[in-house]
Amino acid sequence: MSEAFAAVEIIAAKRDRSELTDPQIDWIIDAYVRGKVADEQMSALLMAILLNGMNTREISRWTDAMINSGERMSWKSLGKPTVDKHSTGGVGDKITLPLAPLVAACGAAVPQLSGRGLGHTGGTLDKMEAISGWRAALSNEEMLQVLKDCGAVICAAGSGLAPADKKLYALRDVTATVQAIPLIASSIMSKKIAEGTGALVLDVKTGAGAFMSEPANANELAQTMVELGKRAGVKTRALVTAMDVPLGLTAGNALEVRESIEVLQGGGPADVVELTLILAREMLDAAEVRGKDPEVALRDGSALDHWRRMVKAQGGNPDAPLPKAKENSVITAEETGVISAMNALQVGIAAWRLGAGRERQGEKVQAGAGIEIHAKPGESIKAGVPLFTLHSDEPLRFERAKSALAGAVTYNKNTERLPLIVTRVD
Amino acid sequence: MSEAFAAVEIIAAKRDRSELTDPQIDWIIDAYVRGKVADEQMSALLMAILLNGMNTREISRWTDAMINSGERMSWKSLGKPTVDKHSTGGVGDKITLPLAPLVAACGAAVPQLSGRGLGHTGGTLDKMEAISGWRAALSNEEMLQVLKDCGAVICAAGSGLAPADKKLYALRDVTATVQAIPLIASSIMSKKIAEGTGALVLDVKTGAGAFMSEPANANELAQTMVELGKRAGVKTRALVTAMDVPLGLTAGNALEVRESIEVLQGGGPADVVELTLILAREMLDAAEVRGKDPEVALRDGSALDHWRRMVKAQGGNPDAPLPKAKENSVITAEETGVISAMNALQVGIAAWRLGAGRERQGEKVQAGAGIEIHAKPGESIKAGVPLFTLHSDEPLRFERAKSALAGAVTYNKNTERLPLIVTRVD
Repeated sequence: MSEAFAAVEIIAAKRDRSELTDPQIDWIIDAYVRGKVADEQMSALLMAILLNGMNTREISRWTDAMINSGERMSWKSLGKPTVDKHSTGGVGDKITLPLAPLVAACGAAVPQLSGRGLGHTGGTLDKMEAISGWRAALSNEEMLQVLKDCGAVICAAGSGLAPADKKLYALRDVTATVQAIPLIASSIMSKKIAEGTGALVLDVKTGAGAFMSEPANANELAQTMVELGKRAGVKTRALVTAMDVPLGLTAGNALEVRESIEVLQGGGPADVVELTLILAREMLDAAEVRGKDPEVALRDGSALDHWRRMVKAQGGNPDAPLPKAKENSVITAEETGVISAMNALQVGIAAWRLGAGRERQGEKVQAGAGIEIHAKPGESIKAGVPLFTLHSDEPLRFERAKSALAGAVTYNKNTERLPLIVTRVD
Repeated sequence: MSEAFAAVEIIAAKRDRSELTDPQIDWIIDAYVRGKVADEQMSALLMAILLNGMNTREISRWTDAMINSGERMSWKSLGKPTVDKHSTGGVGDKITLPLAPLVAACGAAVPQLSGRGLGHTGGTLDKMEAISGWRAALSNEEMLQVLKDCGAVICAAGSGLAPADKKLYALRDVTATVQAIPLIASSIMSKKIAEGTGALVLDVKTGAGAFMSEPANANELAQTMVELGKRAGVKTRALVTAMDVPLGLTAGNALEVRESIEVLQGGGPADVVELTLILAREMLDAAEVRGKDPEVALRDGSALDHWRRMVKAQGGNPDAPLPKAKENSVITAEETGVISAMNALQVGIAAWRLGAGRERQGEKVQAGAGIEIHAKPGESIKAGVPLFTLHSDEPLRFERAKSALAGAVTYNKNTERLPLIVTRVD
């Protein structure tokens, strides 16, 4: 049987709602990476998967096949438990920045392979690159060395890790097949399992600013990923957390680094501190590291110390002033009273339009661009006082950001808000 | 908005079960033909259409957009009503060969653009090419001349006719998106409408040997195509006809030409004669040509005369002996009694394996290869007498054909058979 024909048979099976067999899944992922299955065949299969679904066995095998397309890392030589966190992405979600050094300060090793932002959600690497001199690309040897020396490393995933996922992700992006739970779950988990972490805490965002705006969908994604992690022998749990409102008081690269450092210095916005501590406790528990209180590590400077060492180890200067945008523009409150809601998606799009994010892969972002938020839902405000400060190097962007923010804030209404932790899955 | 992004938006709309707008359909077909929409984007859209459907307005617009991708022929200068027939393909379906000259003999003009076989069903052009010297490719001017001189022309569709369909068909073939009623209907009807026929009779096959094995699906396809024809101003009707059993007593190129000539000489198998006459009457009625009885035209030699002129006009020699396969092999009846069923799909696959069909576009077929059937369902037979004669230039193919035929014939059972005409749609 020719390879092209085998691909047609597999597409037809999923089209007709059959389960794909293990050999079918192994073959098609491998043949796709080898270029023997064409993009147009894979995209037809992805659409059939999106519309007809995959069961847990199929998703698990699909994930394994993606892992097997590349290298699998190991941190056994560290002699320490390893634990990672992954967030599905949100607005103002800078949690990785304080969290990785905090957990390292409490005794676990954190091998954090991160990504860049695309669309309205920020990317951890874009934020870290706001720090003068810091570099995201490390060899496996450098990564191990930083982990040994600092207890945590934040860097870009190398090209050898789940190459099938890289090829598939680029295809999904142009074929409207991103939004499928089996494909999202296998994409995230193949990278995290190949990364070799012993334990994993997933932060699945839900609400207007998240890719999974409906809590039921976020919950299904969380359960799918936890199942995949457990099948692969990774101690995995997930929290579904609120992304109806931006996290913290900043959205934008350097702005979020500044806020993260405030948290590491024992300050920072209450929601960022609370989520950082909750996730740190989950990570330490999953890694079975006992006896250290992360709240103390924030207060006593040990988390900040780990941050400084980690930044330096990758060429960054933790004492250099953070970049600032050339221009800013203030938006004032429209009403007097209590802020009842603030749409995270609109704030994210505004920050993106100011230059904090990119429209196409490979574009540069502005380190200083973004939004400062001066009051959050639940707080009282007076009409005419500053509510947002917009930052950008290009003042022409202010109008586009302002139009994105139109109606983003509601006042004096009984609006239902998501609790910070919506559900927990383990 | 970039073109790639517009494509993603259209794919997402159909993925989410929205109706596509007229401008969306026009744009994506045009952009696909221009190479601005990638194959992987179109195949994702095709799979979404296959699984989520299109309504009549969408299918009609999709068909129009495919017609508008190329030229539209006109036969106004003929001064005669034009009428064509299209069959969705079956085993032993040689009806076009006697039908086109028969209808011409009765006074209508038949501009029959035909295709080649792929898979287990034969193609009219492959059959005609069994005739020494006959050529399928004609310019538009040559086609008009043959129509004027002979009243009928059977030839290949030029590359200018619905080029979007050609590109889409090749894509559907490798992405398991052939079997969708909106795509089948628009593919057939775009070519038939662009061909410029004034009236059209569709022969939609159903049963084991047809692409639409379920009568309900065949009926839906028939209704969809009749609706598309009427919207385009073509007088269209459809018959859903039986393909549970092969048509006639032969399947294979030269073998079917021989059987067709028998019909034109006033003989031939009863089912082939009956279906030819029923379709001829539908075509004449649709073209509003009155007062000629096709049965008489078969008896009085006028249909045969039109056939001979038509063959000669395209370089063929109607008197040359038809090619014969180098080898043959007889399969005998296994039981004594009444033949109750004969699986058309199995007979078609056997003829294909003998060399009558091709596995890949562009392959050559054997003119002499195929199957003769010595007894049909309803007839009595004795165990051990010849039931099939297999013909091929390559005796190694006999075993593969025999295995395809295993269990194809059942004896002495009460098996339900389809009536020759299952339903009529107009």
